[in-house]
Amino acid sequence: MKKIEHVGCPFNYALGVFGDKWSLLILRDIVIYGKKTYTEFSDSRECIATNVLADRLAKLEENGLITKMKDPQNRRSYLYQPREKALDLIPVLIEMICWSAKYDEISGVPKEYLRRANEERTGLIKEIRDGFTNVV
Amino acid sequence: MKKIEHVGCPFNYALGVFGDKWSLLILRDIVIYGKKTYTEFSDSRECIATNVLADRLAKLEENGLITKMKDPQNRRSYLYQPREKALDLIPVLIEMICWSAKYDEISGVPKEYLRRANEERTGLIKEIRDGFTNVV
Repeated sequence: MKKIEHVGCPFNYALGVFGDKWSLLILRDIVIYGKKTYTEFSDSRECIATNVLADRLAKLEENGLITKMKDPQNRRSYLYQPREKALDLIPVLIEMICWSAKYDEISGVPKEYLRRANEERTGLIKEIRDGFTNVV
Repeated sequence: MKKIEHVGCPFNYALGVFGDKWSLLILRDIVIYGKKTYTEFSDSRECIATNVLADRLAKLEENGLITKMKDPQNRRSYLYQPREKALDLIPVLIEMICWSAKYDEISGVPKEYLRRANEERTGLIKEIRDGFTNVV
């Protein structure tokens, strides 16, 4: 795909950091679904190819959105955790959820989630954030 | 690129409709910058290829985000206009602007725009919407 020049435009910046389809789905898995491991990401219903998954995880780490650390329970495996830069995307993700729920005829967003997204957004964001500790 | 299955997930739906990089930049041009013509889209700094532009405009129309109409001032040319489905993306676009402005060291978002996005969002959304008439 042709490279998009970054020229101070917020959309070019956002697209460069998380605008790739797979990057966004991995961020969804981490931030919204609380997934932490390579295996959990692989198991997502979109069936991301392992080479794409490895590439996008490395890019998300390089761009400061996630950290990779040794799993204290299993030193041979790794845990991925969101950084502030990823948690600050929660409002973008919530707006996308609300928009899709309005227009997608087979939307799977639970009604109660949608109600909170619209009426108690600050609380919902806090609850999602509180699911992560020691964020850097 | 491997097809992402749509399974009721709001992110898959959103990615399918406007998640392509070029589609999002065209929506930016239409909704935020008020561009209306093929020539104006071609002139954007990202230098979209004409075949990609034609393809994405057709997809945005097919997905119900924009309408194409004959220019009343010049019957040989066309005007593109956002539909409600595109205008309802304004909150997503604004959240992306706020996020990029926070993290992009060379962000080009004017401070006053950012202040309004944070403090007077309802008014800003209304002002953007009011720039379009006869939206269907």
